[in-house]
Amino acid sequence: MRPFGQTIPLDDARAIITRSLRPIERIDRVALEMAHGRVLAGEVVAAADVPPFSRAAMDGYAVRAADTTGATPGRPAILTRIEKVFTGQMPSLPVGPGQCTEIATGAPLPAGADSVVMVEQTDADGAEVRIFAAADTGQNIGRQGADIKRGQVVMHTGELLNASRVGAIAALGRADVEVYARPRVAILSTGNEIIEPGQPLLPGQIYDINRFTVAAVVAEHGSAPVSHRTAVDTLSDLDRALDDCLEDDVLVFSGGTSVGERDLILDALSNRGEVLFHGISVKPGKPTAFGLVNGKPFFGMPGYPSSCLLNTHILLVPALRFIARLPPLEQRTITLPLAGRVVSAKDRHQFYTVRIANGEAIPAYKASGDITSMSQADGYFEITAETDAVEQGALVEVTLF
Amino acid sequence: MRPFGQTIPLDDARAIITRSLRPIERIDRVALEMAHGRVLAGEVVAAADVPPFSRAAMDGYAVRAADTTGATPGRPAILTRIEKVFTGQMPSLPVGPGQCTEIATGAPLPAGADSVVMVEQTDADGAEVRIFAAADTGQNIGRQGADIKRGQVVMHTGELLNASRVGAIAALGRADVEVYARPRVAILSTGNEIIEPGQPLLPGQIYDINRFTVAAVVAEHGSAPVSHRTAVDTLSDLDRALDDCLEDDVLVFSGGTSVGERDLILDALSNRGEVLFHGISVKPGKPTAFGLVNGKPFFGMPGYPSSCLLNTHILLVPALRFIARLPPLEQRTITLPLAGRVVSAKDRHQFYTVRIANGEAIPAYKASGDITSMSQADGYFEITAETDAVEQGALVEVTLF
Repeated sequence: MRPFGQTIPLDDARAIITRSLRPIERIDRVALEMAHGRVLAGEVVAAADVPPFSRAAMDGYAVRAADTTGATPGRPAILTRIEKVFTGQMPSLPVGPGQCTEIATGAPLPAGADSVVMVEQTDADGAEVRIFAAADTGQNIGRQGADIKRGQVVMHTGELLNASRVGAIAALGRADVEVYARPRVAILSTGNEIIEPGQPLLPGQIYDINRFTVAAVVAEHGSAPVSHRTAVDTLSDLDRALDDCLEDDVLVFSGGTSVGERDLILDALSNRGEVLFHGISVKPGKPTAFGLVNGKPFFGMPGYPSSCLLNTHILLVPALRFIARLPPLEQRTITLPLAGRVVSAKDRHQFYTVRIANGEAIPAYKASGDITSMSQADGYFEITAETDAVEQGALVEVTLF
Repeated sequence: MRPFGQTIPLDDARAIITRSLRPIERIDRVALEMAHGRVLAGEVVAAADVPPFSRAAMDGYAVRAADTTGATPGRPAILTRIEKVFTGQMPSLPVGPGQCTEIATGAPLPAGADSVVMVEQTDADGAEVRIFAAADTGQNIGRQGADIKRGQVVMHTGELLNASRVGAIAALGRADVEVYARPRVAILSTGNEIIEPGQPLLPGQIYDINRFTVAAVVAEHGSAPVSHRTAVDTLSDLDRALDDCLEDDVLVFSGGTSVGERDLILDALSNRGEVLFHGISVKPGKPTAFGLVNGKPFFGMPGYPSSCLLNTHILLVPALRFIARLPPLEQRTITLPLAGRVVSAKDRHQFYTVRIANGEAIPAYKASGDITSMSQADGYFEITAETDAVEQGALVEVTLF
């Protein structure tokens, strides 16, 4: 067995990871239906005005405002209706003095008219329309280009496409849009004992957990999980596994990162690339390795499910969001009294899982090997390397999963 | 034109919607890779212990604790190594008195051994192993079933499958899982003037926006948007459109909900189902209709893009989450001073969009017809029906999009 060299503090590990990352440059063209949640890869410039024509913003009558001066319910202006325009139709006649056009919300404003009087302020008897209120020029009109002007830069590179931004692109008539590709994240578990769920379990075997938990987190952060087959604990198989993953953008292996004779991830990483650190002063998650293979970030996560998943949240998520050009995650936190005393490992920054109930943070950590430590937890709080214990009743800041 | 009957307050509209909804009962069986974010449709009961066997939690030596009593660096216990067990292998020999088995983290504990001494507390010379610390019975062992016991109810119906819960299901060896179906939401825009992005625009036409914005929001809340073709403003086409949507669980139409002659949604809804309300005292979003068609909730949203999208957030999202059996949305809010005076419509509850910059909420509302009102906004604040204006500098609670 080959003990760790010196473990490094968490902040150093974060700094090494950060300076090894590059935002993705690959671009996808996607249909607008699929653009939600993606990151824009170029400016969106309006090819036309939105709306493309001046239109009624109310159901009513398109008028010349001057014709309605002084109109009141007692002394209405009386105009002659010359036609009726619904949406999707063009007016055929200009509105002349003393005339008006009945118009539906969204229909094009006829030439000559400069305002719309809402139907509630009118009364009609055949072609004779009484107007009960003076119109201000421009009232109840959506002017051509009032929303977006032709030539205007509507969105910039790097903007995250939420529902309303997708809507603005639709308004411009574009059926597809260029976005940055989602980073492809190769995920695989290593270990002779690991088999796929759904297969019968032979003596000494356990089911793969990490491939599923890492993939779920990756998909939540704008990246595309790519599952690879489990690798056994031989250098040749790990080398092959690394080679198989090189079409992806980020590599996440779990298991084989500790100090045992068959913990060969470090050897495989040295063979094919460069080890940047091995071992972080955190608990859980000490046996974590990071490096570059063909310039691609490689995360060697601990095999223990809780450790692997916690490290995925703590180290992988910020890295993926940076690569995917997403804004940093806004962590939700809540400050609560701790329901029981917690003793911490000396000289290691600890992430301690808790359940939240009855306004308290209840310690939920069992053992690194236990997936239920995580699946029954609502979040975690952190205990710095300098702290030995946190007393019952102490206020802790819980970061929610 | 046919004016609104009485509009109803927002809270009444919410109550009518709420009591018209039923949580989805349809169940999907999905591969575990696809289970993340879904809602469990049955109990998960452990068919076996996790871990399935007692195993080493450290790299080291499996020993009988009694053989190490009193061991110190100066007076080590001396044991004979009888074999070496890696993960995925079964021990072939029981550990007898004075014996030990070299063992890797995760490998099955041999019979006879009751504890593991970590490698850092040992030294080996061929088969002779010196143990420098007394072991406590059970130390560094992950007991069979310590994480999950066979027969245990691991998860309950209705639990949301996050990464760690998916991991726990994997640990049990299950390759798929039963979850509630995602509600299928039929989405279509109505209006003679509406055409698909990507088509050339003829005079009087505008591009469809609402189908894209509503679909994006729907997909964010555990539901499956199903796009249907745009309907024109005839009763026969709207009837046909309603019929086409009846395989879906929820119907969301936009446009045609106001008071114009060709605002026929209400007629179509009465023909095929039941109108439960028409017109809410909110701004924007007054021309909103709701009803049931074949027992399925029907939302008639305003045609104006900002109104439609805001109503989608305010009325549709809570409804969809209830139907999809998701927990209510945790709205993120922030309290900020208002950068400029805002005048509100009398007797209407108003949702006012704002941008956030320099620690202020900057009014971003343009007009209901403008999609940029939303795409340039970070959130909205609410102005109650009783309030006429909110002054510059007043603190407002902004709900973030």
